[in-house]
Formats: sequence, structure tokens, C-alpha cells
Amino acid sequence: MALRHYTLDFSLSTAVDSASTVPVLLSIFHEQEMTETVHDTDGRGYLATFVGKNGRLVILRLHAHGLLTIDLQCYEGDNIAQLDSLLNTLEKKLKVLLNGKITRVKRLPPLIRGAKVDRYWPTTDGRLTEYDIDRVLYDEDSAYQNIKILHSQQFGNMLVLNGDVNLAESDLPYTEAIMGGGKEDYAGKEVLILGGGDGGILAQAVKQKPKMITMVEIDQKVIDGCKKYMRKTCGNVLDNLKGDCYQILVEDCVPVLKKYVLEGRTFDYIINDLTAVPISTEPEEDSTWEFLRLILDLSIKILHPKGKYFTQGNSANLTEALSQYEEQLGRLSCPVDFSKKVVCVPSYMELWVFYTVWKK
Amino acid sequence: MALRHYTLDFSLSTAVDSASTVPVLLSIFHEQEMTETVHDTDGRGYLATFVGKNGRLVILRLHAHGLLTIDLQCYEGDNIAQLDSLLNTLEKKLKVLLNGKITRVKRLPPLIRGAKVDRYWPTTDGRLTEYDIDRVLYDEDSAYQNIKILHSQQFGNMLVLNGDVNLAESDLPYTEAIMGGGKEDYAGKEVLILGGGDGGILAQAVKQKPKMITMVEIDQKVIDGCKKYMRKTCGNVLDNLKGDCYQILVEDCVPVLKKYVLEGRTFDYIINDLTAVPISTEPEEDSTWEFLRLILDLSIKILHPKGKYFTQGNSANLTEALSQYEEQLGRLSCPVDFSKKVVCVPSYMELWVFYTVWKK
Repeated sequence: MALRHYTLDFSLSTAVDSASTVPVLLSIFHEQEMTETVHDTDGRGYLATFVGKNGRLVILRLHAHGLLTIDLQCYEGDNIAQLDSLLNTLEKKLKVLLNGKITRVKRLPPLIRGAKVDRYWPTTDGRLTEYDIDRVLYDEDSAYQNIKILHSQQFGNMLVLNGDVNLAESDLPYTEAIMGGGKEDYAGKEVLILGGGDGGILAQAVKQKPKMITMVEIDQKVIDGCKKYMRKTCGNVLDNLKGDCYQILVEDCVPVLKKYVLEGRTFDYIINDLTAVPISTEPEEDSTWEFLRLILDLSIKILHPKGKYFTQGNSANLTEALSQYEEQLGRLSCPVDFSKKVVCVPSYMELWVFYTVWKK
Repeated sequence: MALRHYTLDFSLSTAVDSASTVPVLLSIFHEQEMTETVHDTDGRGYLATFVGKNGRLVILRLHAHGLLTIDLQCYEGDNIAQLDSLLNTLEKKLKVLLNGKITRVKRLPPLIRGAKVDRYWPTTDGRLTEYDIDRVLYDEDSAYQNIKILHSQQFGNMLVLNGDVNLAESDLPYTEAIMGGGKEDYAGKEVLILGGGDGGILAQAVKQKPKMITMVEIDQKVIDGCKKYMRKTCGNVLDNLKGDCYQILVEDCVPVLKKYVLEGRTFDYIINDLTAVPISTEPEEDSTWEFLRLILDLSIKILHPKGKYFTQGNSANLTEALSQYEEQLGRLSCPVDFSKKVVCVPSYMELWVFYTVWKK
């Protein structure tokens, strides 16, 4: 049974003494037959907690510097209409009581805590965002990561790896961006996809009849989940590991890249769709950055002189992480140039940076 | 001084008794020199509050049905690193203590309550979303509404009317969608814009050299704010109320529409960019829906037989509101057909429906 946590906050232009504010509120909570405890705050404003029936809990704080906060916790099965009406009463009474001193009233949608289906997946830049998720379709721990596929009302099915939103069925703009923004011709080309287990890139690429696409995805369980629940993204390309013009290697990409380097193979397009912190069975480098650079370095070595390397970067807001990535690009064994583009990926709720890299 | 509100929740596969869990936590809070109150919950699990120095408050609840919730409130100026470390300690200890019974650990980004700059603007479908807002540029109450222009790191400046995110500088997709998705030719056409005070549509439309654009915006203060702070959206079109091929009437659109009906004027394109609940000086109709239909009805009367009427609908998730709108379309004095499209508007954090309406 989940906990609904409501907040109702009044920002005030001036400090307000509790003697003029609190009694009115007390009478409301007493009507609800709640048991009150007034706490000693050591001079830092007024603080009282109220425990009611059915697990209801109210925290009332009148802060010393002109802020009044109310928390109301109750269980999912409680009478929601009654609670809304309680909050309405509180808001109305306080608006009268604090009239002329209010700079903001904020009553947020309740936080649902401990629900069966979790709707909160913060953005990469650390903001609290609630998704319209109503079902968990797939929830598996592989040897590498936790894999969830969740149903969002508006975004369709959504792949979440280790808590990071990876791709939803609404996110064709992601796939288009990481394939060069619709400006490339894949026909007759040699293509290498690193990661990409959701099948989105592969499904779009095969439509253009390349010579051969090799996709290297480490996690069979990602493929298993996506081929069942992300069909709007992958179509039928994940149903078999081999197709007319593609093969999927369920392997760690690092040894594969090393083998290709030794063999002197080259690719016209290399698309790095690995997670932000790539997964490997043998992370021989100490830091994430060094590991990222290793993959970049190996990839550029097997990139055709006229080829292009595409990759996702990071949240547009994480300017420091983006700078660090660009610094890595300047330290490869083969000199490269790059361009970047900011793209809106629907399910991300934050703008995302994509890179194109090529040999100088 | 804002309040930072952290939450740390453990969902458990089974109910856990407080005797085995609570003492370890108590010792942590006692180390922090917090004063404890254990509350009587009438058999509904364990509930204790802890009041510390500097206004810190902890609420610890071990719910009867297998959920443990911790709230930690502190002031903005508190030692954040110390609090993070306290939460880390709690999380670590509980993971050991509850080992084998944990189905989910959820630690959300803290809710910032009563901050100078408010970052929480829920979506139209009622979800809690935090924006990357760092500055308030414009905050005015007009005769019609509260107008805010806020700076978002990723979306640029953002117009918020009565708490609803209207348009950010990142939102060219909104303007393109409400102008017909880039498939229309405005050259030499008669265009009417209802609302549109941010100047986005006007700025895009003038580029196409229509015969004449008439924009009817009720609120001068929206224009004033946008022409100063939304220049990436409006360019210089709001600097004057008249231009080569446009005029801006700062008026209520209803009387203007009625006048046009009487005069028998027609327009090739009518773009309704009014807020979801339109503002009027004389709302002669009782309900919002009837008022919406009045505006629709008047607009269709002055729409050229081969003309098109564009408007925003609503959140893609508000299927009932969308159905009701479509019902209104079936009840106009002049029969119409319509099509709709779902578009991702970057700053909305929810998919949005746009309508095209034409005479049968």
C-alpha cells in the first residue's frame, strides 16, 4: 500500500508569529481527531506533528523566516476526496489568515511513495520528474544490469537500464539523431552498431539496404525484453540474430573492436549506442573516462577515412561532462574533428547532445 | 531560506518488525544529537520524529505492510555534504539490515520548498516535474492573469501564464505545429492570430510574406514581457504594433470576431493560440466549453471556404478533454472536419495534441 505525500507551502513576505496562525490550524486538525505533539525547536519556529486515524500524519512548520510548510501523509486507500477537501480548507483559511503577506502558495501533486509501479525517474541532470507509467512489463536482472520495460501512457513502452531512461517507443528522434539526423545514405555501406540492444537503430538502418550491419550487444536479456515489448521500436529485426544484411553479436564490444583492428577492417558508419557508462566484461581501464576513450580509440581506428562515427553525448545541462568528453576526443591516437547537435528526445524530459566524429 | 526535503524509501517483500530495525537507526540519529519522539500510531506501524539542531527534522516510519519511509528536512544553508553522508549511512545500514527483503530502494532528488525561484511546474496531466529554472526575469499581474518569464538552462526563457508553461524559446516545434506543420504556404494570404502574445507565430508568419496578418492579443503586459525577454521567439515583431504586413490589436478577440462576422470578412488561415481557458472581458457563456465553442463558431464563420483553422488542443494524456473538444467541433453552426497530430514540445514535458479544422 503506497503512501501519498501532499505538501502545501506558503512563502511569506515577513515572519509570522505562531500565536496568530496556529490556533486556527489546530482546530482543523482537532476536528479530524488527530493527536498533536508540539516539538521544541530551540527557537527555530513552530513545529507540531499530528497523528490521525488510518495512518494519517501531518507535519506543520511555521519557520522563523517567513515560510509555512504543511506535509500530509496518508495511505493510498484513504478517502482521497476527504483529504483534498482538508487541504482546500487549510489553503483557504491560511489565505485569509495570512492575507497581504503571501508571496507564493505552492501545492504540488502528491508524491506517491512505495507504490507498486514506480513513476519517478529523475533526469540525468538530477531533476525530479514523474512519468505517466502505469505498468511494469519486464523487470529482469542480467549479469550486467537491471532491465525494466515500463508502459508510459504517452511515450509507449520505455526501456530503463539501471534506473536510466534509455529509449521509449516515442523516441524515433533519438534514433534519427544518432544515425546522423536523416542526412546520411546507408545504402551499400558497412555499418557497426555498438550496443543498441533495443533494436531501434538496426530497424531504421536495415530499411536503407546497407551492405552489412554488425551490431554488438552484450546483453541477451535486453534483446529478449525489447523484441517482446519494444516492437514499435525494433519491428522484427531482433527476432533473429541474422538477417539479409545484418548480424547481431551478443558479445562484449571491446574484444570485437580489438579483433577488427587486428584484421584491418573498416566501417563507413560506426554508431556508438552504449550506455553512458559502458558495460564490459573486462574493464581494463581504471576510470570511466579512460574506458570511454579506449572504445573511442578502437572505433576510430576501424573507421573508414571518409567514415562517420555517431554517438550520444549527455544531457545538454551537463556542460562539464560534455567538455570532458570533448577533451577525450582531442586525445585519441588518431586526430579527429567533431560536431554536435542538441535534440529533444520525447521521453527524456531533458535536451540531449549528440556527436558526429570524423577523421581529420 | 528554502527547505530541502529528502526522502529515502525502502519497499519490502514482507512486513518487518520495528524491534529489529529501529535501534540501529536510533543510534544514528542520536549521534546527530536529535531529540526523539515516538508516536502512538494505534497499531499502524512505528512512527518517530527527530528534531535536530539547525532546524533539521527526520520522520521515520516503518509501515505495517512492508514499507519504510524516511523524510529528512533541513534548511538550504545547512551542510549538504554532511546530510548526503547521513543519508548514505542510513541507506547502507538499512540495506544490510533488510537484506533479502528489499524490493526497491528509492532516494529522490530533494524537493526544494519555499525557494526564491520556484522550479516546480506540474504538467497539464498533473505530474510533478522539476524544471532547471534559475532566474525570474519578469513577474507581473495584469488585469487578466499572472505573467512570469523564467529562465531555464536548457529551454531558454519560458513564458508561464497563471502557472501554466506556455512557450519557451526552445519551442519552435510548437509554433510550427500550430501553423500547420510546415506544410502551408502563407505567401499572399490573409491570416488571423487569436492570442499569440509571445509573438512566436507572428515572427514565423511574417517571414513568409502573407498579404496581411492580424493578431488579436488581449494582454499588453504579455507583449511587454515577451518583447523584452522572449526575443529568440518573437524577434523584433512585437517592437511595433504595426509592420509591413501585420497589425497587432491589443483587444479582446470576441468583439473583434463578431465585427468581422458582421463585415463578412474572411481569412485564409486562422490560428487560435489562446490559452486553454481563454480570457475575455465579457465571457457571456456559462461554461468554458460553451465559451470555447463560441470562439470556434465565430472563427469558422469568417474562415474562407478553402481556409484552415489551426489550434492547440491539450495534453495527449487528457483523452477526455480531447474528446469533449472534438464533440464541440461537431456542434458548430457550420459543419467542419478536422485532423489532429501529436507533437513533442520541448519545454512541456508531455506530448501535445494540435488540431487542423476546415469547412466541409
